[in-house]
Amino acid sequence: MDFTPSKKTESFRQRLLAFMAEQIEPNEAQYQKENRRLNPDEDWRQWQVPPLVEELKSKAKAAGLWNLFLPDSELGEGLTTLEYAPLAEIMGRSLLAPEVFNCNAPDTGNMEVLYHFGSAEQKKAWLEPLLEGEIRSVFCMTEPDVASSDATNMQATIVADGDEVVVNGRKWWSTGLGHPNAKFAIVMGLTDEAADRHHQHSMVIVPLDSAGVTVERMLPAFGEYDAPYGHGELVFDNVRVPKANIIAGLGKGFQIAQGRLGPGRIHHCMRAIGAAERALELFVTRGQERIAFGKSLLQLGGNMERLADMRIAIDQARLLTFYAAWKIDQVGAMKALKEISAIKVVAPNVLQQVVDETIQLYGGAGMSHDVPLTSLFAVARALRIADGPDAVHRATIAKVELRKQQNKAASREDE
Amino acid sequence: MDFTPSKKTESFRQRLLAFMAEQIEPNEAQYQKENRRLNPDEDWRQWQVPPLVEELKSKAKAAGLWNLFLPDSELGEGLTTLEYAPLAEIMGRSLLAPEVFNCNAPDTGNMEVLYHFGSAEQKKAWLEPLLEGEIRSVFCMTEPDVASSDATNMQATIVADGDEVVVNGRKWWSTGLGHPNAKFAIVMGLTDEAADRHHQHSMVIVPLDSAGVTVERMLPAFGEYDAPYGHGELVFDNVRVPKANIIAGLGKGFQIAQGRLGPGRIHHCMRAIGAAERALELFVTRGQERIAFGKSLLQLGGNMERLADMRIAIDQARLLTFYAAWKIDQVGAMKALKEISAIKVVAPNVLQQVVDETIQLYGGAGMSHDVPLTSLFAVARALRIADGPDAVHRATIAKVELRKQQNKAASREDE
Amino acid sequence: MDFTPSKKTESFRQRLLAFMAEQIEPNEAQYQKENRRLNPDEDWRQWQVPPLVEELKSKAKAAGLWNLFLPDSELGEGLTTLEYAPLAEIMGRSLLAPEVFNCNAPDTGNMEVLYHFGSAEQKKAWLEPLLEGEIRSVFCMTEPDVASSDATNMQATIVADGDEVVVNGRKWWSTGLGHPNAKFAIVMGLTDEAADRHHQHSMVIVPLDSAGVTVERMLPAFGEYDAPYGHGELVFDNVRVPKANIIAGLGKGFQIAQGRLGPGRIHHCMRAIGAAERALELFVTRGQERIAFGKSLLQLGGNMERLADMRIAIDQARLLTFYAAWKIDQVGAMKALKEISAIKVVAPNVLQQVVDETIQLYGGAGMSHDVPLTSLFAVARALRIADGPDAVHRATIAKVELRKQQNKAASREDE
Amino acid sequence: MDFTPSKKTESFRQRLLAFMAEQIEPNEAQYQKENRRLNPDEDWRQWQVPPLVEELKSKAKAAGLWNLFLPDSELGEGLTTLEYAPLAEIMGRSLLAPEVFNCNAPDTGNMEVLYHFGSAEQKKAWLEPLLEGEIRSVFCMTEPDVASSDATNMQATIVADGDEVVVNGRKWWSTGLGHPNAKFAIVMGLTDEAADRHHQHSMVIVPLDSAGVTVERMLPAFGEYDAPYGHGELVFDNVRVPKANIIAGLGKGFQIAQGRLGPGRIHHCMRAIGAAERALELFVTRGQERIAFGKSLLQLGGNMERLADMRIAIDQARLLTFYAAWKIDQVGAMKALKEISAIKVVAPNVLQQVVDETIQLYGGAGMSHDVPLTSLFAVARALRIADGPDAVHRATIAKVELRKQQNKAASREDE
Repeated sequence: MDFTPSKKTESFRQRLLAFMAEQIEPNEAQYQKENRRLNPDEDWRQWQVPPLVEELKSKAKAAGLWNLFLPDSELGEGLTTLEYAPLAEIMGRSLLAPEVFNCNAPDTGNMEVLYHFGSAEQKKAWLEPLLEGEIRSVFCMTEPDVASSDATNMQATIVADGDEVVVNGRKWWSTGLGHPNAKFAIVMGLTDEAADRHHQHSMVIVPLDSAGVTVERMLPAFGEYDAPYGHGELVFDNVRVPKANIIAGLGKGFQIAQGRLGPGRIHHCMRAIGAAERALELFVTRGQERIAFGKSLLQLGGNMERLADMRIAIDQARLLTFYAAWKIDQVGAMKALKEISAIKVVAPNVLQQVVDETIQLYGGAGMSHDVPLTSLFAVARALRIADGPDAVHRATIAKVELRKQQNKAASREDE
Repeated sequence: MDFTPSKKTESFRQRLLAFMAEQIEPNEAQYQKENRRLNPDEDWRQWQVPPLVEELKSKAKAAGLWNLFLPDSELGEGLTTLEYAPLAEIMGRSLLAPEVFNCNAPDTGNMEVLYHFGSAEQKKAWLEPLLEGEIRSVFCMTEPDVASSDATNMQATIVADGDEVVVNGRKWWSTGLGHPNAKFAIVMGLTDEAADRHHQHSMVIVPLDSAGVTVERMLPAFGEYDAPYGHGELVFDNVRVPKANIIAGLGKGFQIAQGRLGPGRIHHCMRAIGAAERALELFVTRGQERIAFGKSLLQLGGNMERLADMRIAIDQARLLTFYAAWKIDQVGAMKALKEISAIKVVAPNVLQQVVDETIQLYGGAGMSHDVPLTSLFAVARALRIADGPDAVHRATIAKVELRKQQNKAASREDE
Repeated sequence: MDFTPSKKTESFRQRLLAFMAEQIEPNEAQYQKENRRLNPDEDWRQWQVPPLVEELKSKAKAAGLWNLFLPDSELGEGLTTLEYAPLAEIMGRSLLAPEVFNCNAPDTGNMEVLYHFGSAEQKKAWLEPLLEGEIRSVFCMTEPDVASSDATNMQATIVADGDEVVVNGRKWWSTGLGHPNAKFAIVMGLTDEAADRHHQHSMVIVPLDSAGVTVERMLPAFGEYDAPYGHGELVFDNVRVPKANIIAGLGKGFQIAQGRLGPGRIHHCMRAIGAAERALELFVTRGQERIAFGKSLLQLGGNMERLADMRIAIDQARLLTFYAAWKIDQVGAMKALKEISAIKVVAPNVLQQVVDETIQLYGGAGMSHDVPLTSLFAVARALRIADGPDAVHRATIAKVELRKQQNKAASREDE
Repeated sequence: MDFTPSKKTESFRQRLLAFMAEQIEPNEAQYQKENRRLNPDEDWRQWQVPPLVEELKSKAKAAGLWNLFLPDSELGEGLTTLEYAPLAEIMGRSLLAPEVFNCNAPDTGNMEVLYHFGSAEQKKAWLEPLLEGEIRSVFCMTEPDVASSDATNMQATIVADGDEVVVNGRKWWSTGLGHPNAKFAIVMGLTDEAADRHHQHSMVIVPLDSAGVTVERMLPAFGEYDAPYGHGELVFDNVRVPKANIIAGLGKGFQIAQGRLGPGRIHHCMRAIGAAERALELFVTRGQERIAFGKSLLQLGGNMERLADMRIAIDQARLLTFYAAWKIDQVGAMKALKEISAIKVVAPNVLQQVVDETIQLYGGAGMSHDVPLTSLFAVARALRIADGPDAVHRATIAKVELRKQQNKAASREDE
């Protein structure tokens, strides 16, 4: 056992920290402010990518801080999940960072899907421009009318018809849908209800300008839209795409989904931890600077205890996520289900808790846009729902634990 | 001891419930939607009161459901704090209701200030139109640059100069500032630093069209603006008003503040409890209707336990608030400090917790504007800060408890 | 609504407080110490009632502080459940008090059973000496081999055979079994499996000296035995008692149980609240007296916040219990199920939490017998299990809540 | 970074697991039962080491599972703190194990003190027989009359007088004092009040048969005595020992204490984690076997969620403890203060929580001695106080965090 980060990680970490300090932090407030100018309930189609973003992307690419998430050593930097995790944390400190480093959701997940399961043509057409940061993409899984935590509820259909497949259905919480560069969606839907539970669904690439695709609206997430990455609702009405757009074959949807979610959840959770570290810094800053009743806020009531508890919670969340990353690297995401579910419960809840306490210390300012706390809160709140709500992950953990103990008991009885 | 509501309360309760069902509930969603059309960071000055609101106000007035909060039996309905509490709960179920029934913050508090401390002229000029619902008002206490939880930090000044007083300072989180009908502010500021701690401050009525008053911006509260009641920031730059605008005399600010906050906190907390009841209904509705893994969400995991815990928490918050209301009626707000502080900690936290759990059951929908949950969350989150943050109230409770036990110990030793 | 205690309650309260201060408090430590002299795992049969107890009982009787729990105005003092509740709180401050005032479990419950359901002969033989405090009794419901939270699991049998009934089975956690004066048990068992769910069980009076009754052992409850009231395990092996010992008829067991538990839970919970108040006083005492790092413990860390939170929690628990008591008085225990379940969850958990925090402030002393904290902890811990574990009560509350909302929804649809 | 345990650890782990299964588990219940036969308030001096213990010690020694805690490769097995941690977890599963493997408190700490700071003579006289398991020892730090969390409160004195030192004072919670083999105490006391804060105290070896040493009583810890390891209270009345008994010189007490506590806390915490794992197994066992309302307890209410949360909490506690162990190995205990404090807060609280939930599932049985849950609870409860209460450790963490952020801010300003 060893907790020293790899030299590779350490080197990237230093460079990332410098880039964050020089390029990201000074620009963030202005960026957030511009993103909020339009009311997304009304006129989200007028959003544009701020020129700053493309500039920063070029700089990140030039600095070699690009596609770090991809384990491939040619297309990415060949970092393992565990090596990448501490870097994801740093990028999670700012809501502006992920797009700049080309690691924002859902593009990383989509790139991984195409990288692992895509055909040569699919890679050429969609993976390459994504890796270059030329286009963006969305992932269509969740549906408004059913509990999407249970995939068997899914109502959208993907049906083969000659050389084409026909997609029908309504999806929402499709992240990044409002981005002007969003060019395609990976859509999951039901293909064969008669197949066994794990082979009923397919995933297919649907260009967003296909006939029958209608973006109905963008969805506020706790008052935030994260423009232009916001989440949207769209309808597929007899949308026809070539059969070649099916990823890995009909009926492979479930298998792809499982593979997609493992490392992606590590990324999400590590970014959440970075966000929590940032909130904690704000907690300390405010706690030291603001004076009431002749003392700094930190010296009042239980605030020092809160600081200790938050420090412990963040450190524990980080270690658990490192452990899950290591497990994925060792045995694959499918055998690390329990560990992945564990961080998926822990990290967003820790972030929400830290942000909530920090808001409390900031008082009114904490609820306003003068500090990024409500944005970080929205990230946490959404993450407790996205990629499986807490309840589903707790159920997974409990089931695995139960099986483990049953096996142990059985092996004892065999003796 | 008796938990039966008074007949008066029961009669108003029935009429209120009917009005809510017939007039408020059917209009709420549309009202909220219209309120969100404008981006308040940008163009809040274009807000207008939806015509619906004035219609509903007329109906409420006609139905005798008007100014129920005011203990006076001529100007209001002569309800005690305890008699009014269960009615405030009902009105708290909808964000549209308070303006309709003329009981929205900060007008109720301002009306009480003028009722108890205002001169005949002040009552004529400001209380009467407020009671009629013809104008709105704001209350200027919190300042951006200091911890307002400690009143001695206050930097705004109110200085007598001949027949006038001069007001200088910056205030924010002035609720209702964006309302087109907002005509005046009650401003609290420092008059005499040399006086003892409880006689340094004054309150003065400042018409919002006075020279030197600048509304700088409206402030989002967790992404919500509650247009047109939103919270704002404004500057007083050598604003001069007649000395007759001072309420109750120079140096009386602290005393008025204490009296103002007692019943007002009961109102806030009871509305929070009503909001929590509404969220709990949504929890049950979603929990029964949505199906995953072959069961209703309520039948999955610990959701039934959560339902029980939330029911208990709400009932306890209600009883504690009734008890505080009763205490105020019996011995006055000044001697019910501990009880008032207790509900101020409990009620908003219960609301926040219930809304958070309900959002979790709604998934993505819960974070959107399709259900009013994020609005209710913002109410809870703001209320944990407004009128004294949790920490200040906990400190009050602990201090009173300590003194009580010291007195008890002392009286034992005397024996 | 009114929170003023009745004059009757107030008068008893003053007298009780005086008796507690003069007679109970000075004797408690010695009493506890003596009770711990014997190791109950080994030699519990040597326990004797300390002479002090009989003396105090006589004094309490003489002072008219006797059988206060019984609503009957001749046999008791005619106090309603709500009137009695604040008195139960006071008696809950000391583990010595309940026997002295003749209100200790399970005797109060048994007396109520006999009072409401007993025949004239049963009253004469068993109720009268209980009311006089001449004998003690036990209640046999819980069984070691099944989840007793589900009454349908019960394995003990009560079968009529001519003029007799035959009792078989094993019971444990029979409180008071070790008391030398324990003369009889009220035993619940299965009579008719074919009957509907609520008419399968019976309750029968079994003298403890009956042939076939074997007391197997006393059970430690978190290291405490509460000698001589301790909990025990006993076996009924073909025990024959006259048919006249059946209470209210065969098959009436369930109905009696329901009636028995309502007021009894109020008593338990109010005593728990009294115990929590006592622990809180110890918290304050220690927090003020003990100095570390130049400050009193109360001034360190979050202890003042803890004090506030505990004060709030206790006050809320008290109000909720008063409310449940009032509900029982108004509509009977059967229609106050939700309220009773609510306090049964809240009060013991509050007590456990307060005691745990107080132990923390006392450090090592808190875990020892130098202060009564571990005894109070054991009371709390046991109470979270006895009379239905938390989980069962939460399930009851959730079910009632669900039904309420369903009815509300149904009545809306009917309109 | 790597989470694979070292081969050495893995090898010991397998052998330990086998020994636990074959030698410890089958004997534990009987051992606990015998330990409870005597009432320690009364007759603790009659305690004897059960013959079984010496047998098992011989077997453990023969199996090479002896003194694993000691980093020395000749006297121990040369395991680092991190390598030892997973083994400590296994030994923590049983209260019988630590003495058998010669790793029980406070002997391990005392052995480390003598190993690192003892003179050759001290090692010969006291360390060697301890390492052989021939004698036991106690550690005298905590005092009844002052808050021992603040070492400057200490009242015991250690004063040089010619060739001797004179020890005066009262100590309690001296673990292992009741053990018949306890031969000496390491006593900490005040030597020079005029010295700086970290050089006022000394540690001295005091044979327990010295004139002036009086063992006054054994102390129950939540009703448990852990006979014969129990905690005791003793008085030093002008006890004279040779100057050669001073460890590392007068005034070195603080320094030794700091070094002593680092690895010792890892051991405590890892054993607590082992105990928590055991409790969790009991939770699952009971949860599966016991049936109520037609379902296993695990399928009822929120028990599966509880299982998940406890699994997460234990895994996080383990990782945090591994991390602290690694930090100690890397930079020494003095620079790992924050990490050590963090696990000291986390591990006992996790254990307490898991045991409390498991007791709830066992119902009455959980509070009795039929399962070892109350013993494990007492371990957890005591550990939250021993070696610094939670509050002190939280304060340490917060202070370190604050300093870290202040340094970061300062270095930013320097740029």
